[in-house]
Amino acid sequence: MTYSITGIQAGITDTIPIHRDVDEWYCGQIGAHGNRIQLTLFVEAFNAIQRLPLSDEKSYFRLAGIHAAPWAEWDGIGPKENDGFCVHNDYTFPTWHRVNVITLFEQVLYEAMIQFITGSLGVPEGVKRGWRKEAEQWRLPYWDFARFSCTECDGTGEQSQSAEGRELRLPVLAMIPQVKVRKIGSDPPELEYRPNPLYKFQMTMPMGQLEDPFKITSQCTDGIPFDQRMATTKYGLLEGHHADVLADGGQHWSRVNIALNEHPWCGSIIAGSVSNPTLQELTYRLLTSRSHSWGDFSSTRSNETGDQSKPEKWLNLEGIHNNIHNWVGGFFYKRPDPKDWKLWGSGHMAHVHVAAFDPIFRLHHCNIDRLAAIWQRLNPQKWFEDEESKLTLKKELIPFHKDDGTLYTAGDLQDWRKFGYEYEITRGEDMDNNTWIDLCTESKPFLINIFLGDVDREDFYDAGSPHFAGSIYSFSSPLDDSQCGNCIEQQKNGVLSVSLLPATLVVKNWDVDVKKLFYVAIDSQGKSVNCEVQVKATLFRAPRSSYDAPGDGSNDYENIADGAPAQVDY
Amino acid sequence: MTYSITGIQAGITDTIPIHRDVDEWYCGQIGAHGNRIQLTLFVEAFNAIQRLPLSDEKSYFRLAGIHAAPWAEWDGIGPKENDGFCVHNDYTFPTWHRVNVITLFEQVLYEAMIQFITGSLGVPEGVKRGWRKEAEQWRLPYWDFARFSCTECDGTGEQSQSAEGRELRLPVLAMIPQVKVRKIGSDPPELEYRPNPLYKFQMTMPMGQLEDPFKITSQCTDGIPFDQRMATTKYGLLEGHHADVLADGGQHWSRVNIALNEHPWCGSIIAGSVSNPTLQELTYRLLTSRSHSWGDFSSTRSNETGDQSKPEKWLNLEGIHNNIHNWVGGFFYKRPDPKDWKLWGSGHMAHVHVAAFDPIFRLHHCNIDRLAAIWQRLNPQKWFEDEESKLTLKKELIPFHKDDGTLYTAGDLQDWRKFGYEYEITRGEDMDNNTWIDLCTESKPFLINIFLGDVDREDFYDAGSPHFAGSIYSFSSPLDDSQCGNCIEQQKNGVLSVSLLPATLVVKNWDVDVKKLFYVAIDSQGKSVNCEVQVKATLFRAPRSSYDAPGDGSNDYENIADGAPAQVDY
Repeated sequence: MTYSITGIQAGITDTIPIHRDVDEWYCGQIGAHGNRIQLTLFVEAFNAIQRLPLSDEKSYFRLAGIHAAPWAEWDGIGPKENDGFCVHNDYTFPTWHRVNVITLFEQVLYEAMIQFITGSLGVPEGVKRGWRKEAEQWRLPYWDFARFSCTECDGTGEQSQSAEGRELRLPVLAMIPQVKVRKIGSDPPELEYRPNPLYKFQMTMPMGQLEDPFKITSQCTDGIPFDQRMATTKYGLLEGHHADVLADGGQHWSRVNIALNEHPWCGSIIAGSVSNPTLQELTYRLLTSRSHSWGDFSSTRSNETGDQSKPEKWLNLEGIHNNIHNWVGGFFYKRPDPKDWKLWGSGHMAHVHVAAFDPIFRLHHCNIDRLAAIWQRLNPQKWFEDEESKLTLKKELIPFHKDDGTLYTAGDLQDWRKFGYEYEITRGEDMDNNTWIDLCTESKPFLINIFLGDVDREDFYDAGSPHFAGSIYSFSSPLDDSQCGNCIEQQKNGVLSVSLLPATLVVKNWDVDVKKLFYVAIDSQGKSVNCEVQVKATLFRAPRSSYDAPGDGSNDYENIADGAPAQVDY
Repeated sequence: MTYSITGIQAGITDTIPIHRDVDEWYCGQIGAHGNRIQLTLFVEAFNAIQRLPLSDEKSYFRLAGIHAAPWAEWDGIGPKENDGFCVHNDYTFPTWHRVNVITLFEQVLYEAMIQFITGSLGVPEGVKRGWRKEAEQWRLPYWDFARFSCTECDGTGEQSQSAEGRELRLPVLAMIPQVKVRKIGSDPPELEYRPNPLYKFQMTMPMGQLEDPFKITSQCTDGIPFDQRMATTKYGLLEGHHADVLADGGQHWSRVNIALNEHPWCGSIIAGSVSNPTLQELTYRLLTSRSHSWGDFSSTRSNETGDQSKPEKWLNLEGIHNNIHNWVGGFFYKRPDPKDWKLWGSGHMAHVHVAAFDPIFRLHHCNIDRLAAIWQRLNPQKWFEDEESKLTLKKELIPFHKDDGTLYTAGDLQDWRKFGYEYEITRGEDMDNNTWIDLCTESKPFLINIFLGDVDREDFYDAGSPHFAGSIYSFSSPLDDSQCGNCIEQQKNGVLSVSLLPATLVVKNWDVDVKKLFYVAIDSQGKSVNCEVQVKATLFRAPRSSYDAPGDGSNDYENIADGAPAQVDY
């Protein structure tokens, strides 16, 4: 009997409960008019599944393990005997994550909430009904990484934003180790601090010492000792640190926040003017593009039928998503040159094998799902319609079963409402661009750093490097030790990826020679991986109208320069 | 009956137990030949005093409170009715901290260890004797902030250092939230994780909501909301963040480590050559100077009888100590310009009112005490011997009582061995410079940033700023709300401070106009405080011989330039 994934089917009346912005939701819960019931249920249920034994497939560890490492069986399906579970660089990227991260996870969490309500340690009899109603209305919140932070809750539970607060940040719930919830059984209601399950995932032993087949081996992760970790980390894995530090230390959220805003090609920050982070620019461009097919939109996978010649199609959802993984987790494990120390520090989110263990992964992908839903809403006629993506519409999304015991396919995932959730922004009848612009604006993993001008042979990391224009992040797994059938097959078939980096701000603010386009691909050890990675970089000048009407399909992008690999020493 | 401060008088045989390097001590405890007994006692006792009620004067909170905020009475003496407890910018700085941070604190911790051993929840009867012996041999470890980090323990419990590991770091015990100790009552011995009391000091409510007279008010700390904090932080207080983040979040140890190495005037890092951090340079110069009087050596207090004309005397123990407070805690609370975000973040150690609450404060001051002891050993004839410091020799060090009920004076503190501790390096009969070179190499608080060349009106923070040469950190308290009698008296008497910044590396590597010397004093809001602070900056060229025989007393320092306040916009 397989586990039937349906999403939360409770609480649906005239309207379907919505995924909410996590800071808004938290603010409402703790505000003057908030009762903290959903927050309490969320925290208690999330903590409960984090503590379940590994033998339980609905434990947090096993659910996280569906994404990649430790490559264990789930719901009767082993990744090794099949094509593997991971679907990166693939047109089913949004749908596989829709059923996994959203539908399955929120269903399991809801079940744990109900268990908490009905269990003997749970809420008193007299209020069970009210709490169950709250659980039925709850849906997983999302982290809108492209929205400027709100700093406070006002008295009503609404968020307020200071004029100065124009910056991107992790959600509040990713920055606090404890969270104040309702104390069960207290009357009148009291509050108490509980470990915050969104802060990190803490185990009691190094993940490399877990029993087979659940142990996390370090070879899967590019030589970074994730096998030694007892908890997830953001930027907390630094070469040459003591074993105890490598085991358990490091939620460097201020480093994440800097990375979100300061990613190097944000020219306006360099010029000191008002911030306009690239994440907003990228999100805006992606959602306003009208020429994208589903194949163009959904994945970094290079679509040979057209996108090679149409740079406006090079931007895609998966590419934006990859950047977030890089900036939240931290990429560089190896000790860099001292002047680059601020980049130092590796963490789970940046490495695909272990990314899903960091609880922020859930909120990040809920937002990716939301962006996909918005795009679907704006492009209702597009759904695996292009020549290449349509070949994958019937591909089975393993290991996820429907209630009839068959496996989900991408085609089952078009209508998210079936799974019992909705988004505020996709709910209305009418939808135009302005509605949501306000809301947001394979192989070894590697970074491709792009330069407009000569590249210093030793200095090719970030904004401080001469002529640095930005990075493209691959979010992939090393093949040598992984069991990712998808990766292996992609390599066999020579599948390529595509992504886009806006150079507008850089060119506007810098004194650059735009005829010179160079790139360096580097690994998490800070070494060039030019010899192993096939890169094709091209600089285009977009038509003048492209910002006002981006991606209108006109093919008047002008090829300015073809890139060449930079000659570097490391 | 007053509390008699004696230090630990147990365990003294032919030799006196030593303060050990904290990483070495930890490494020995957890190594192949370590039994972890001292570590277990330390962790259990430290956790125990951190949990004691505020009414108990030997609680961690009350002991930390002796340093400054909340300005409560201790051992029958209130700071308000007297001269105040704090002795910064004063010749008694090393002696007051010797009795407070070392003697008193390790005595209390030892007593808590004995209580743990003898108490009903403590160790089994059969091993009590062995554990007591370990407690008797234990002394507070120190953090040698000028020693390159060691990365690993080898099999014997010794530390090994990789050739690449040339960097300064926090101790391992300041970077891990949990620590593995002996599980009491287990036979054979098992290990278990316990909260690491050196990682942070965690309370259960915001310190501004503690009962009177123990509440920490934010006015004491330059407008930074330390009153909202439930735990100490390193770089975790950032303007505009959510109240819950301001309450509890942020042990950004990787940021501390960057600051220790990257403090801007470390020219060798800028030039990309082998690291030679300024902290080592400063420590070396201080300890090799032969011309310093106790008054010159001990404090930033300006000694009018001589040091105004002798720049080689401007370097002092307290000044080096101030830098560490700045880099460990984090100074800037106010949101800076985005290009300076990496500096953003304030924490307890950088602000004198609350610095002592961060547990790393103890290990830092143990090292400061060690440097004082080394200097005393090298200069046995110098002890409050100069005209100015000798006036303070009999000054009472409140609120610390001797066993006869009278108060300690500076004169009582010359021989640290009386208090039951020793240092490896000061133990031998003979001592020359080479022995220890291997081992290590007031009002509102403000930073004085020094420039060699023109100052950008908007960009005057750090190494990225044009012509930046370094900073001097004042570690003082705002007068308006503090009850620090020492500060008030110093202001009344117009007492000045003095410190020194080596410009050698900067001048060697930079293309600077050494005739132009400018400075800007800035507060933790990032604003210039020129109008309130009286600054005199002078650039000297040291005699060529000064590095080989530093500070030989010859007065051939050449005055190159007198500084002027830079004109800045903020």
